[in-house]
Amino acid sequence: MRLEDLGERRVLERVHALLGKPGVSGFDDDCFVSRDGLAVSIDSGPLDELSENAFEAGRKTIALNASDLCSTGVKPEYFFLSLSLPAKKEFAWVKRFFKGAQLEAGLAGGRIAGGDLNEGATYSIAGVGFTEKPLLRRNCRAGDRMVCSGTVGGAAAARLAKQRKVFRGCPAEFKHALDLPDPGYAFCRRAWRKARAGMDVSDGLAFTLHELARLSRVKVVVEELPVPRRLPAFCERHGWDLVEAATRFGEDYCCVFSGPFKDGFARVEKGKGVFLEKGGELIPLQKEGWEAFIG
Amino acid sequence: MRLEDLGERRVLERVHALLGKPGVSGFDDDCFVSRDGLAVSIDSGPLDELSENAFEAGRKTIALNASDLCSTGVKPEYFFLSLSLPAKKEFAWVKRFFKGAQLEAGLAGGRIAGGDLNEGATYSIAGVGFTEKPLLRRNCRAGDRMVCSGTVGGAAAARLAKQRKVFRGCPAEFKHALDLPDPGYAFCRRAWRKARAGMDVSDGLAFTLHELARLSRVKVVVEELPVPRRLPAFCERHGWDLVEAATRFGEDYCCVFSGPFKDGFARVEKGKGVFLEKGGELIPLQKEGWEAFIG
Repeated sequence: MRLEDLGERRVLERVHALLGKPGVSGFDDDCFVSRDGLAVSIDSGPLDELSENAFEAGRKTIALNASDLCSTGVKPEYFFLSLSLPAKKEFAWVKRFFKGAQLEAGLAGGRIAGGDLNEGATYSIAGVGFTEKPLLRRNCRAGDRMVCSGTVGGAAAARLAKQRKVFRGCPAEFKHALDLPDPGYAFCRRAWRKARAGMDVSDGLAFTLHELARLSRVKVVVEELPVPRRLPAFCERHGWDLVEAATRFGEDYCCVFSGPFKDGFARVEKGKGVFLEKGGELIPLQKEGWEAFIG
Repeated sequence: MRLEDLGERRVLERVHALLGKPGVSGFDDDCFVSRDGLAVSIDSGPLDELSENAFEAGRKTIALNASDLCSTGVKPEYFFLSLSLPAKKEFAWVKRFFKGAQLEAGLAGGRIAGGDLNEGATYSIAGVGFTEKPLLRRNCRAGDRMVCSGTVGGAAAARLAKQRKVFRGCPAEFKHALDLPDPGYAFCRRAWRKARAGMDVSDGLAFTLHELARLSRVKVVVEELPVPRRLPAFCERHGWDLVEAATRFGEDYCCVFSGPFKDGFARVEKGKGVFLEKGGELIPLQKEGWEAFIG
């Protein structure tokens, strides 16, 4: 059985079953939380997935890690950043990368506390913080409403525009979403007060909502997709499906929280599944999101 | 200025100068220690540097990270393990890898608490623990003696033997040192009681001792190299320099501690530099060790 036959999530499931459960967080939570409240999130990937701009790439490396901590209700304290780089790389690039990373770490509420260098072309990031009240994915309750710390679909639109060579006509806010994602730190900090569950949308909103629904054993009804203002017109112009662009890609790195909020883009009910409410009707929202090995 | 012009250590120095100092550990310590005693060590590298045997590769990934924590006086609590793997890789390989990692994590006193999967061919590992008394590299004092939690030179001998195609005649203990390094956890835990400074020997004993001497502003005199019993004869047979094999390579991943020990392989004096005592004479020990980008 090869990894491509299983896909990232089934591989992780099997690895997790092998290792047992060491903390209060489930293995479905991207952020580990120990019984003492230590919270750690790690991410790694190829450097060429980030922005070509070194400063933006540094910022994104921190942002994509911080979003997992923030969605769990954790203020990041320390980031540890490992880079594998070609020996021919200019030091000036590394300097700009770390300056970007340092800026983003500060915005997230923490700082870069260590790192490692090696040869190659990958990044690896560990974010550490503490929490007394982890917002786990299994904690949504019927009656909750869901809020999102940003918009979804912008990064997907920019990526699609790049692939189809119409990147120049793409609004700056979409390019920005792809190269410089904003987890919405200030929004998250306010949301933590009421939230009881959270998850970031790095693999697409559809996957996020299906995971929250599955783990909390609830039904989620999306009343209005939290898309950027200009996305519907942009999708229509290019013949792209708005719901697909907004829910089945990822890389927006904002956070969804569930709790007794007054407003919100979705409501939580008894039942199961994830639906889109449209003209009074409930349309099932497909689950598929981005996944390593079978992408 | 390219990375290969600077070398790993000067690149790290410059990055550190940029970022400022967030904890009680210096930037020269591989293990970060916060003011509250949180200790984190991270490592990353290409998977093909590890053993071809998946179980051993899993063990080594944990061991090479645990040695940094152990040398700082920290019992590892949690490990977070990220793998980038080709999609064609067999799941059975991944399973054996994690079984090895889990065994080694237990030996080190901790467990694997999380991970991430991606496409590629690298590993990345973060080890986390807590300490009230970090053994920093700047803490050696004149009058101390130094102890080592294992032997040095075995991994180098195995690597040289591989390169020169005499691997079959290489003693099993050397092969073992290369594929399955043993940080000497039990030894470390006992040594912590007396130790005030520590560092692992991942980049070679010469580099380790020079760093300890430089940061503590002391002189180190090696009275007897802590080599495996069969290394002198093996080096002589193959025309290799024993001192070089024992001190200028790395990958043994044992720990050196400095403190008021009764025994030990080296003594700490006022002054500076690192010397080898031979027949009453002090011979300077060259500093060079293994370094990324200019390896």
